[in-house]
Amino acid sequence: MELNAYSKDQLVALEQSLTQRYDDFKKAGLNLDLTRGKPAADQLDLSNAMENALNGNFRAADGTDVRNYGGLEGLPEMRAFGAQLLGVKPSETLAAGNSSLTLMYQYVQFCLLFGAQGADSAWKNEGNIKFLCPVPGYDRHFTICEALGIEMLNVPMTATGPDMDQVESMLKNDKQIKGMWCVPKYSNPSGEIYSDETVDRMAQLGKIAGANFRIMWDNAYTVHDLIDNPPQLANLMDACRKHGTEDSVCITGSTSKITMAGAGVAFVGLSETNLKHFCAWLSSMTIGPDKINQLRHARFISTYEDLLSHMKKHAALIKPKFDLVQKHLSEGLTGKGMGNWTVPQGGYFISFDTLNGLAKEVIKLTNEMGVKLTPAGSTFPYKKDPNDCNIRIAPTFPNVSEIDKAMPVFICAVELASVRQRLKSL
Amino acid sequence: MELNAYSKDQLVALEQSLTQRYDDFKKAGLNLDLTRGKPAADQLDLSNAMENALNGNFRAADGTDVRNYGGLEGLPEMRAFGAQLLGVKPSETLAAGNSSLTLMYQYVQFCLLFGAQGADSAWKNEGNIKFLCPVPGYDRHFTICEALGIEMLNVPMTATGPDMDQVESMLKNDKQIKGMWCVPKYSNPSGEIYSDETVDRMAQLGKIAGANFRIMWDNAYTVHDLIDNPPQLANLMDACRKHGTEDSVCITGSTSKITMAGAGVAFVGLSETNLKHFCAWLSSMTIGPDKINQLRHARFISTYEDLLSHMKKHAALIKPKFDLVQKHLSEGLTGKGMGNWTVPQGGYFISFDTLNGLAKEVIKLTNEMGVKLTPAGSTFPYKKDPNDCNIRIAPTFPNVSEIDKAMPVFICAVELASVRQRLKSL
Repeated sequence: MELNAYSKDQLVALEQSLTQRYDDFKKAGLNLDLTRGKPAADQLDLSNAMENALNGNFRAADGTDVRNYGGLEGLPEMRAFGAQLLGVKPSETLAAGNSSLTLMYQYVQFCLLFGAQGADSAWKNEGNIKFLCPVPGYDRHFTICEALGIEMLNVPMTATGPDMDQVESMLKNDKQIKGMWCVPKYSNPSGEIYSDETVDRMAQLGKIAGANFRIMWDNAYTVHDLIDNPPQLANLMDACRKHGTEDSVCITGSTSKITMAGAGVAFVGLSETNLKHFCAWLSSMTIGPDKINQLRHARFISTYEDLLSHMKKHAALIKPKFDLVQKHLSEGLTGKGMGNWTVPQGGYFISFDTLNGLAKEVIKLTNEMGVKLTPAGSTFPYKKDPNDCNIRIAPTFPNVSEIDKAMPVFICAVELASVRQRLKSL
Repeated sequence: MELNAYSKDQLVALEQSLTQRYDDFKKAGLNLDLTRGKPAADQLDLSNAMENALNGNFRAADGTDVRNYGGLEGLPEMRAFGAQLLGVKPSETLAAGNSSLTLMYQYVQFCLLFGAQGADSAWKNEGNIKFLCPVPGYDRHFTICEALGIEMLNVPMTATGPDMDQVESMLKNDKQIKGMWCVPKYSNPSGEIYSDETVDRMAQLGKIAGANFRIMWDNAYTVHDLIDNPPQLANLMDACRKHGTEDSVCITGSTSKITMAGAGVAFVGLSETNLKHFCAWLSSMTIGPDKINQLRHARFISTYEDLLSHMKKHAALIKPKFDLVQKHLSEGLTGKGMGNWTVPQGGYFISFDTLNGLAKEVIKLTNEMGVKLTPAGSTFPYKKDPNDCNIRIAPTFPNVSEIDKAMPVFICAVELASVRQRLKSL
C-alpha cells in the first residue's frame, strides 16, 4: 500500500511495529557495512596469478629492462592497453602509477596552476574558476575541487547523462566554468550511461566554453558490466576528432577494479598536444612509473578478449550481490511510495532516493541498527544534498549473507523514517 | 709533469699527439655512456627473488589484505622499515609510491601553495621565495625549484658539508629563504658526508629561519656504502629533537637503488604535526600507495641486518667500477695539474673538476669521441656552473670493460682541453 493511502491510526500502528523492529535490530548487535566501493576478496583472488606473471623475465616487448629507471609515459604495451580501455590512441595515453584519482588531481591542478598548454593558459590567470558537477556524483571528484579552491556548480543527471541543455546554457553564460566532472558509464552512484547524443554534445562543449575548458571523463567502469551484451558508451575522443575538440578532454581509467585495488595501473588519455605539456610537467616530479607492475599487468591480461573474459568473472561474483539488494528493495519497498532506486547494469553502486528530507535520518537509523552507510550528502559537492534524499549503496565488498542481513535493516529505516515524516505532516 | 711546467714547444708537441689520439678515438666509433646514475642489471638481479616474496600470502602483519584499497600512510611494516632508513619514528614516516622525487616535489609544492601547517603558513603568502642549494648538487632538486618558480641561491660545499657560516649568515639576512636542499651522505655528485657538527648546526637553522623553513634532507644514499665500516651520518631528527626544531625538516629516501630502480618504495619522514598536515592534503589525491609492492619489500628485506647484507652485495658489484675509474684518473692525471676528482666512500658518483672554464669543452670532446657524459652545468642551479668546471661521472651502469674503454677517452679530452687552454694563455 502507498504511504499516502494510510489513515493516521494505521500510521501510528505501523510506526509502533516498525519501532519494535528497530529495537530488535538494535539488540541483535549487528556490525555490517555497505559503504565501500571496494572489490571483495574473491574478486581480488581472480588476479592472484598476476604475481607470477613475470616468471623471471623482466624484459618488455621492446627489450626495456623494466627493473630500471626511465620511461615517463609508461611501457608501450601498457600504453596500448590503456588506449583501448580509454578509447584513444596509444600516442595519446600515459600509463602511470596506481591511482587514476592522482592523475585527475594532477591534471586539474596542472591546468589551474601551470596551464594545460603553457603558462598563459593557466586557469588561475582568469580569477575564480568553476566546475560543473552532475549530481549525484563521486565525492572524490568534489574533494579535488575543494582542495584546489574550484567552485562547484550542480547539474542534474537525467537517464541519458547530464542535462545537456542546462550544461550548454551554463557554459554560454559563465566563462569562469573551466571544467566538468563525468563518470560516463555506470555513473557513480546512479548508474546512468551517457547516450550517444549526450556524448556528441559533450564533444562540442569545447567550442562553447573556449580553449581552456576540460571535460574530466572518468571512465572508471568502462568494462565493469554486470550483464551480457552490455550497453555501449560512444567514444568521446572520436566525437572530439569529428568536432575538432580533442584538446577539451581528459580521459582517465585504471585497472584498480580489474586486477588489484590500489595496486593496479592508472591511465590518462589526452590529445598529443595536451599530453606533451602534461608530461613536461610530470618530468619535474618523477622519472617514471613502476614498469614492473605494468609488465605484470601486460603479461597477465595480454589481449582485450582476456580483459573482457576476466571481467565476466568479476560479474559472476558481484551480480548475485546486486541482485540480492534488488530483491530486498523490490520485496520491501515496491509500491510503498517511500523512495526510488536504480537498477544498474554495471558499475559499483545502487543509488537510493528517499522521500525529500530523509536521507540523513535513514542513514542515522541504519547506523544505529548496526549497518554503516555512506554519510548523507557524500554524493554532492560540499556534501550538501539539496533535497537530503540520496543514499549510495555499495554491495560489492560485503558477502551475500551480510547483504542479506543488512538490507532488511536499511528497509526498516526507510519505512520508519517515512512513516514518521508522514505522521508529522498530518 | 705539471701542465704549467711545460714549455710552449713542449705544449705544441703534446697538443699534436693528443689531437692524434683524439682522432684515433673518433675513428674507433665508440658508443659508451657515463651519464646515468642507474644500477646495472647485475645489481637489479640481486632483487629478482622479491617477485616471489609473497608466495600467495597477501596479508600484512596486522592482517590487512594488501590487495585492496586503503592505508594512506603505508603498511606498518614498511613505515617501520622507512623509519629506520631515515632515522625517524614509524609514526613520523609515510611509506609511499615508487618515487622519493615525487614526495620531494609534493612536499615543496605543498609548503609553497597550501602551507605545511595550514593555509596561513603557505610560502606563497610571503612573496618571492628562495632555496639554498649547496653546489655542486643534484639537478632534479633544482628542476623542482625551477618548476615551482622558487629562486635558488648557491652555497659552496666543503669537506664537512655546506659552508655553514655562509648558510647561517644568508638565513639571518634574507627571510625569503624558506628551504634548503641537502644530500647529506655521499652528496650528489661530490660524495661528502656532512660532519656531526654540520648536522647539529643544520638542526638549528629552523631557529634562525623561522617556523616555515624546511630542510629537504634527501638521504638517498644512506646505506649505499662502498667500503666496510663506512662513515656514519649523524641523525638529523635526533638533533632536531634536542633543539626543538622537528618541524624544520623533511627527510626522504627510497629503496630505488636498494631493490628495483623505479619499482621500489619511497619514504618521507616528517614531524607528526607536519605529517598530519601533509597526509590531509595527500588524501585529496590518492586513496593510498601500492601496498602489494610494500609487502613484497617487507618480506624480501625483513630486518635491518638483511638490508645491510643486501647492500654489501651491491658494493661488491660496483666497487670494482669505482676503483677502475679511480685507477684511470690516478694513472692518467695525477700530478698533471689538469683537474681534481673525488674518491667517494659510497653513493653513485665521482665528481671531477676540470681547470676553470673547461667542463663544457671536455664534455664536448668526450662526446665527439663516442662517450656520453652528463651535460655541463647539470650539477648547478639553472645549469650555470659559474666556473664551468664540474663534471659528474656515473660508473654504476656501464660494465667494467666499457668503463675501461671510456675512461682513456675522458682523460684524453681533459688533457687536450687543458693543453689547448694553456697554449692560448701563453
